Amino acid sequence: MNRQSTSSYEQLISRIRSANLLASTSSLLHWDQQTMMPAGGLDHRSKQLSQLARIKHEMVTDPAIGQLIEACEADPQLQADPASIAAVNVREIHRDFDRATKLPVDLVAELASACSVAQAKWQEARKLSDFSLFQPWFEKLLALHKRTAECLGWHDVDGEPWDALADQYEPGCTAKATEAIFTPLRQQLVDLLKALREASAGPDERLIRLHLPTNPMKRFVREVAERMGFDFRRGRLDESTHPFCGGTHCHDVRITTRFSETKPIEPLYSTIHESGHGMYEQNLSESHIGTPMGQSVSLGIHESQSRMWENLVGRCRAFWVWCLPLLRDSFGPEVETLSVDEAFAGANIVRPGFIRVEADEVTYNLHVMVRFEIERALMKGDLKVADVPDVWNQKYRQYLGLKVPDDARGCLQDIHWSSGAIGYFPTYALGNLYAAQFFEKALADVPDLYEQFASGKFDGLRSWLGENIHCHGMRYPAAELCKQITGASLSSGPLMRHLEGKLKPLYGL
Amino acid sequence: MNRQSTSSYEQLISRIRSANLLASTSSLLHWDQQTMMPAGGLDHRSKQLSQLARIKHEMVTDPAIGQLIEACEADPQLQADPASIAAVNVREIHRDFDRATKLPVDLVAELASACSVAQAKWQEARKLSDFSLFQPWFEKLLALHKRTAECLGWHDVDGEPWDALADQYEPGCTAKATEAIFTPLRQQLVDLLKALREASAGPDERLIRLHLPTNPMKRFVREVAERMGFDFRRGRLDESTHPFCGGTHCHDVRITTRFSETKPIEPLYSTIHESGHGMYEQNLSESHIGTPMGQSVSLGIHESQSRMWENLVGRCRAFWVWCLPLLRDSFGPEVETLSVDEAFAGANIVRPGFIRVEADEVTYNLHVMVRFEIERALMKGDLKVADVPDVWNQKYRQYLGLKVPDDARGCLQDIHWSSGAIGYFPTYALGNLYAAQFFEKALADVPDLYEQFASGKFDGLRSWLGENIHCHGMRYPAAELCKQITGASLSSGPLMRHLEGKLKPLYGL
Repeated sequence: MNRQSTSSYEQLISRIRSANLLASTSSLLHWDQQTMMPAGGLDHRSKQLSQLARIKHEMVTDPAIGQLIEACEADPQLQADPASIAAVNVREIHRDFDRATKLPVDLVAELASACSVAQAKWQEARKLSDFSLFQPWFEKLLALHKRTAECLGWHDVDGEPWDALADQYEPGCTAKATEAIFTPLRQQLVDLLKALREASAGPDERLIRLHLPTNPMKRFVREVAERMGFDFRRGRLDESTHPFCGGTHCHDVRITTRFSETKPIEPLYSTIHESGHGMYEQNLSESHIGTPMGQSVSLGIHESQSRMWENLVGRCRAFWVWCLPLLRDSFGPEVETLSVDEAFAGANIVRPGFIRVEADEVTYNLHVMVRFEIERALMKGDLKVADVPDVWNQKYRQYLGLKVPDDARGCLQDIHWSSGAIGYFPTYALGNLYAAQFFEKALADVPDLYEQFASGKFDGLRSWLGENIHCHGMRYPAAELCKQITGASLSSGPLMRHLEGKLKPLYGL
Repeated sequence: MNRQSTSSYEQLISRIRSANLLASTSSLLHWDQQTMMPAGGLDHRSKQLSQLARIKHEMVTDPAIGQLIEACEADPQLQADPASIAAVNVREIHRDFDRATKLPVDLVAELASACSVAQAKWQEARKLSDFSLFQPWFEKLLALHKRTAECLGWHDVDGEPWDALADQYEPGCTAKATEAIFTPLRQQLVDLLKALREASAGPDERLIRLHLPTNPMKRFVREVAERMGFDFRRGRLDESTHPFCGGTHCHDVRITTRFSETKPIEPLYSTIHESGHGMYEQNLSESHIGTPMGQSVSLGIHESQSRMWENLVGRCRAFWVWCLPLLRDSFGPEVETLSVDEAFAGANIVRPGFIRVEADEVTYNLHVMVRFEIERALMKGDLKVADVPDVWNQKYRQYLGLKVPDDARGCLQDIHWSSGAIGYFPTYALGNLYAAQFFEKALADVPDLYEQFASGKFDGLRSWLGENIHCHGMRYPAAELCKQITGASLSSGPLMRHLEGKLKPLYGL
């Protein structure tokens, strides 16, 4: 790069770092709101957050950013090596700048205010289990989402409006590509589910029926997270109603979990899940902090990390070989007679239910597919909002074999649509798929991974993830990263091999 | 106000609210740093804070603010009623604007960076108990403070540089006025201390020798704070190395305390102290949030609230009539035989020590006077930094009868000077004086206050404070507020009457 454009690049990076620094402050305020803030602080907090959002919006839509991007892109050296640090940063900054400037400020404000009302209406509707109360607000949101999609546009000539929204969460994600993966996967999952339900023997349920008091559970999950590699010198573990991973940057990552008397083992898996997210954040490149090269690829790749630790590691037999003695130390007599095989079985019970967030590994993706198919049809204009409950219930019968009893346990269960997130759900399923495909490769590269887990060693997997995924930041888009690492495009094969290989023996098949 | 200036006033208020909204975000980040942040987050946190400080500085020094102030001040209606809401707000905004614009940005930055180094050097020097290691940095800070004072100026024709610095913490405070109060007070305190030390019987010490485990202590101090009136729907109580009151506004006030095995009763008094600060913040006017009318008067008045609850309430006999049963319920056998008189006595032991933050009610102000006299002489040029330890030690012998063993327990004990705070210490002593003078008046207005305390009722005092102090925001400067409430200027009389009335009987005098 010549001096002129080096200077443009440095100016650009400095502005983006500044905007991301401010965003990290918003992130801390969000964390505080979920974990620490007294109830009375809500109004003021929303003012603080909207002030920061406004200042950040001014920073990232400053026309000077557009000029700096242009100057950088004109540089021959940057053009010559599209995988260089500078080229990747400029590419992603350009992407964000386009998104931020394409949306009229009025539309953003209208959507934000509509979401705020819609969310309250959704809460009311869910409480009364009556979709019709939410329907007019969902219709309003949908109209605004369609305008948003039109402003943003979609890449492929054969693309569709849904793509423009999904691209916010999973860059490059399209409905067609998602469908191409989901269609075979859906049939395979439905078939597997049928086989498991027809099996004579279900897994032992002792693990999920243990009485595990909250205080030792707090110490226990913290120790598991620490042993797996979540760094408490650069992070925290707290409680919140809905577990999440937040915080401000790789040196200050904050995960949360929740404790329940009725679901005693849930805190373990929610902690492992969030630790997976947290370790991704902690391992991002420190020197690239505040720039795309120091950021995660996409929500799907982020979810692949949490799901890998939760399901591929935390629900394998080797994990329980190591973890059961720790559980015994923490809880004493109650656990003394539990065997490794019983614990392993109890962590892998497959049972269709109405609620996505409580779903097992087999049914989880089916929950996601229902939502994807519905939101895609809504955005296309193929489905009316008023028909959502019927279509929802019909799909639950078809995929999960369940008769949905009411809207609260049906199409009103998730906050996403009311909070303005359309195109978000598939990232959960993509996470499961990426997790299985990456893990299959990690096992090929490090054949004794399971032996390591059985002796409480997780740095083999952590290093593999660090070298193959974390260190790259946003260098490769998700689909490309997957090919780069595994030599193949994302497919349902690895996930199905994992599920069948683990579950069929457990169900005596 | 006519339409034109109403509009200027509204614009001005909107800008100031905005700047204070951002400041409230900084305040939350500070709280988080002291209570929650993992150690690794420090570097990033300082970047977040300096970004917010820079943005806020730009907001409050915008020349448009100066023009709006001028437009408001030209309004005849505002001139006609200087105690009106608008006049008070404009007066205080003008004050802040002057301070913010008088200081060259370079000087502010130089001072900030010098403080950051000086603080590290002070820590090192204190650890090695060697003032000479801190001396050159203190000299540098002092030179910068002198330049700061020159830029800010001082009001009185017979004023001095120290005044310009003190005015930041205690508007209108001057060295001369402080001296006029401190000089008689010093002699009275020295005489009282001498009498108490020569008394044959010291108070019973059982209270401070109790073994009070940390976990029940946490519940106990929370209950005391709640019963006294700290509102937990709009506040939190956490732990930090140095107790403080922070948070973001009247709906989200965060106080901290600390627990110590060796000083079992300290958490009670530090919690009551911070609750006093916290209740002041919680009772500030909600409708004036983010403007001077919704802000506290000064550090001295703020400290009067914390010291009143800690000492005038928390160390009176009536408090222990109510609190002792609660202490018994919380700790059981250990406390069962403790009597109200023993608890009352144990909370009022006077014993000169080297450390200000551990001082009793009699010696506390003497610690402050040493610091005031030294920093005043330094700013005047009457004392060299190199001579600080000698002068310090000589004054400790003279006022407290103590031979200071080393610099760590001497002139290096407090962080204030290294963190750039000169003119701050006297606000602690002013707080004690205001507390006693206000409380004497509160007792005259509500004669059964002690009976109320004895039955666990604190709303009588809370209402009195709300109506006389909290509701006014910054309407009256501290000295004027004192006259307004008590009919007299601040003097040492009420504090000495309080101390002698309580302590002499306890010491059999």
